[in-house]
This record gives sequence, structure tokens and C-alpha cells, in this order.
Amino acid sequence: MFDIALVGTGGMMPLPNRYLASLLLRFEGRIVLVDCGEGTQVSLKEIGWGYKAIDAICLTHFHADHVTGLPGLLLSIAHSGREEPLTIYGPEGVAHIVRSLCVVAPEIPFRIEYVEIPPKGFAGIKIPLTNFILSTHPANHNSPCFAFRFDIERKGKFDHEMAQKLGIPVNFWNKLQKGNIIEHDGKVFTPQMVMGQQRKGLSVSYCTDSRPPKGLPEFIADSDLFVCEGHYGDNAQLAKARKHKHMTFAEAAQLAHDGNVKKLWLTHFSPSLPNPKDFVKNAKKIFPQTKVGYDGLTKSLVFDED
Amino acid sequence: MFDIALVGTGGMMPLPNRYLASLLLRFEGRIVLVDCGEGTQVSLKEIGWGYKAIDAICLTHFHADHVTGLPGLLLSIAHSGREEPLTIYGPEGVAHIVRSLCVVAPEIPFRIEYVEIPPKGFAGIKIPLTNFILSTHPANHNSPCFAFRFDIERKGKFDHEMAQKLGIPVNFWNKLQKGNIIEHDGKVFTPQMVMGQQRKGLSVSYCTDSRPPKGLPEFIADSDLFVCEGHYGDNAQLAKARKHKHMTFAEAAQLAHDGNVKKLWLTHFSPSLPNPKDFVKNAKKIFPQTKVGYDGLTKSLVFDED
Repeated sequence: MFDIALVGTGGMMPLPNRYLASLLLRFEGRIVLVDCGEGTQVSLKEIGWGYKAIDAICLTHFHADHVTGLPGLLLSIAHSGREEPLTIYGPEGVAHIVRSLCVVAPEIPFRIEYVEIPPKGFAGIKIPLTNFILSTHPANHNSPCFAFRFDIERKGKFDHEMAQKLGIPVNFWNKLQKGNIIEHDGKVFTPQMVMGQQRKGLSVSYCTDSRPPKGLPEFIADSDLFVCEGHYGDNAQLAKARKHKHMTFAEAAQLAHDGNVKKLWLTHFSPSLPNPKDFVKNAKKIFPQTKVGYDGLTKSLVFDED
Repeated sequence: MFDIALVGTGGMMPLPNRYLASLLLRFEGRIVLVDCGEGTQVSLKEIGWGYKAIDAICLTHFHADHVTGLPGLLLSIAHSGREEPLTIYGPEGVAHIVRSLCVVAPEIPFRIEYVEIPPKGFAGIKIPLTNFILSTHPANHNSPCFAFRFDIERKGKFDHEMAQKLGIPVNFWNKLQKGNIIEHDGKVFTPQMVMGQQRKGLSVSYCTDSRPPKGLPEFIADSDLFVCEGHYGDNAQLAKARKHKHMTFAEAAQLAHDGNVKKLWLTHFSPSLPNPKDFVKNAKKIFPQTKVGYDGLTKSLVFDED
């Protein structure tokens, strides 16, 4: 089960009834957080998944509303008893930014590994301690910013008939399924002999803060869920969106359509947009499977039946 | 009118229903904020006094729960259109700490003046742009920390009979009341000639995070309101309070009693204390004028009638 929680949906500044935009992803009990603005430790408490299993934090960019919750969250993760290292991904300079913010949190007891995202992004890196495969793609904002894609891969099906035919003892089947090579009675059995073609996995993509980025539809292609900023609901605010390097609902929907994703969640609403649902039709016209996100919205993705 | 608002009452970490401890003071429209943990800009929004008139921020110490809200708040003050400088008071190193936290907020358009509090504290400094007189006193925590006292002084009464007796023209009276020296027809009139003895002003004191500090009763003496941490409610938690350099309700009440203050508000409750009111009797036994603080508690102090 691949669980997703929209932790907050606010852009620019936290509001009494809207936490700052961030996203939680969980697979096999391991957790990845995307962005960490002021108050994220509180919004995570509302979600209730705990702090201890957060193995990575992916930062889209370094604007205050996406990072200033880091010292508080890292201290809360420390109080939860975490000892394993935690990886923080972000644009160039990520170590300097996080260390500066953490000037008031010198006592964090676990190691923090920093991974700088190169300007062109990267494809398919496994996040340590998890089974998430992270890819990154340049966004188009007024500071270096990245869109993320999280893939969970799925192995092929174990071919029982073939295993029997090859005379592989049943007690080795599980090891082969897990990717081990077996030597027995002078014979060598490899996973390739008994595992079918890799099956369709699960994927979630995320993009904020940005104008519609070049190449994004290809980057998010066929995602099960695409979470995208909709800073402005009204199509008439397109000029404003262009000026502040954000998107309208319609632009986000166009990306979802062009990327052939299954579902779209809108997030990162401007403080000037108290009731984003009023504008959902602007997105649904282009991409019917749109949902206006709200703080605490969750979803679980499961693998297709074979 | 000297208005006080308890912005938040939480210690250590913000909780879904309890913002981090901080205090707002307002006199003649000018505002001073004490401490600024994560989420303070949101709790300030709940109070509703606005951001623009915040002339000073006084930091008790540099633990994360007292300072990490600074970059977000300073940006929100900037968005409010403030252009006047803002003064930040804090222990030694305050400029370095605030600048490090603000690594993600380089575009703050107003000047920030930093005032380092020397280890022994200072007495009676006027906060620029306000009529608050700030005094500081060393607290006893596990990092350099200070208690604060805010005084509003009150001039003596204008002596109309004396002014008439001295033959001072009525059009100079207001100027003399404002502290100006007047020369007229070869005569010199000074405020001292016509102003009575200075009258009782108003004062609010604040102490957190700390063990009961040496000399504090004298420092807070006769305050109209003393806002003090009560990290632990139960007297049985005294050993814990000693270990973590905090106070129990009873210890805060003893300070209020010894300082002969008018009223005590308790704040900065441990996350392990969800219902602080359950323990108020531990304080009231020692100091009956105790109130268990809550987020959004406000009070207005007025000068005594003449």
C-alpha cells in the first residue's frame, strides 16, 4: 500500500485554518516528506503517522514557506527517538540552507545526509532505507525549484510452473523472489529464470512552485496521482500567475491532461483564495479527475490485480 | 491603555491546539512581541492586532521553540508594508542567530537593529518608536536567557494654578506638558516648574524558561501583571523541573507573591500537561491572583485614577 497525505495546502504564509503546502508519502512503513514550511510538525501531528519513520525530506526550493519548519521538525524527529540517518534532497546549497536554519537546533542526534539536485535534475535514485525511487525535474520559479516523481517498482510474478520444471526446491523459491542467486547441487538458479516481466508499479508526482514547466508532462507521464499547485483559481489571474511564477487551476489541469495521469490534486493555494472549491470547474473542464486538495486529504494506492 | 495578549502558551513544541509561548504588548498603537517560535505569525493573526506596528521583538533565549518563527514573521511584517526599522533584543549573538534563521528571507525591506543583552542584563532602555521602557534580568536556564520588564511611565499632573501664578501664557502649557523648555519675554519656563511628581505607571513582567531566578522578586516588584512559565503543574514534578531548568506552578506563584505583583498569568506549559487548569490550586494556595493562561487571553491595563 502506497499512502499519500496532503499535509497542508497553503501557499506563501500559514493561516489559522490552512497549514503550509507539504506532502507525506508512506510505503512499507517508511515515510518521505515533501517540503517543510513553518508549522509542518504540527500538521504532521494532525495526520498522525509519527515522526520516527521519516527517512527523507525532499525540498522543492528554499523559499521560507517551504523550509522554515525544518529545525522544529528535526528536533521533533529527534525526540521521537530516531537514530538512523535522514536524507535531505534540495537544490544546490541545500546543506548550507538547512545548517543555517538549524543554528538553534545543534543537538540533533542522527546524521543528516544532503543530496544536491543538479540544475537539470536526476532520474531514478533510490531513497535510502525506503523503496521509493526519486526522480527530479526542473520547475520554473523565481528561484531554483524542482518537481518530484516517486515510483514504487513492482517485480514480475513468480513462475511456479517454471520453478517446478527446473527442479528448484521449494525452500529456495522465496530467496529467488527476493532477488538472490542460489547454488544447489552444483546448479545455479537465478531470479531471471523464474521471475516474469516487471509489472506496473505505482507513482506519485508533485509540482510546486512553478509556471507550467517544459517537459513536465513527460516527467509525470502516467502517474497514479499528480499533486500540483493551483495558486490561483480564476483564469483571469493568469497575468498574476505569470508575474509571480505560479499556475492557475486550468494550467495545472492541462499538465495533468498532457501527462495522462490518473488523478490530479490541487494544492498551494494563495492566501487570497479562501475557497478554492469555487474554481474547480476551471480545472475539471480540462481534466475531469481533479480534486481540490485540503489539509489532511489522504489516499492509498494499491498495485493492479494481476 | 496598555494591552497585553498571551499569543500562545505552549512550551517545547507547537501542538494542534496550543501555539508556542509568546506575548504581545501594545501601548498607543505601538507593539512589542516577546519570543517568536514556530507558528507565531499564525497565532498573531488570531489575535488580530496586525503586523505593521511591531516595533520590537524581545527574545528570551535561542531555543528553537522561541525563535524559529522569526523568518516567517519578518516576511509577513514586510508584506504588511512596514518600512521603519525594527529592533530585536536578545542574548549575546542575537544578530548571528537571526541572520542565520533568515537565510531564506533575504528580501526583508526594513532595517533590523540588534541589541545584545549583556550577561547581567540592563535597566530602563526606551524601545525605539515606542514608549515602552525595557529592563532585563538574567534567568536561570540551560542556555543564556533573560526575564523582561516593560514599564510605561506616567508624568506628574500639570499644575494649572502654578502655571497661572507664574504668568505662563496658556498657549505654552501643552509644550511644557510635553517636556519642552520655553523662553518668552526674557523669561525661561521649564516643565519642572509646572509638572507635579511622576505618577505611578504601568508594568508587565515576563519570565520563561527558567528555574526561579535569583533577584527576580525585586526585578518584577509591584508589576501590574507578571507572566511566568509554569512548565509543570504538579508539585511532584519538582525534580523534573530542576533537571530541565523549568518551574512548577507553585514556584511561579512564590515569585509572584515575593514580588508583590498584582496578577500572575501562567504560560509555557509542557506538552505533557494537556489540562493545566487541573493544577491551578497549587499556585492559588500561594498566590490567589493566579490565572492559568490560554492562547488568546488578553487584558488591558489603565492608569490609576488621580
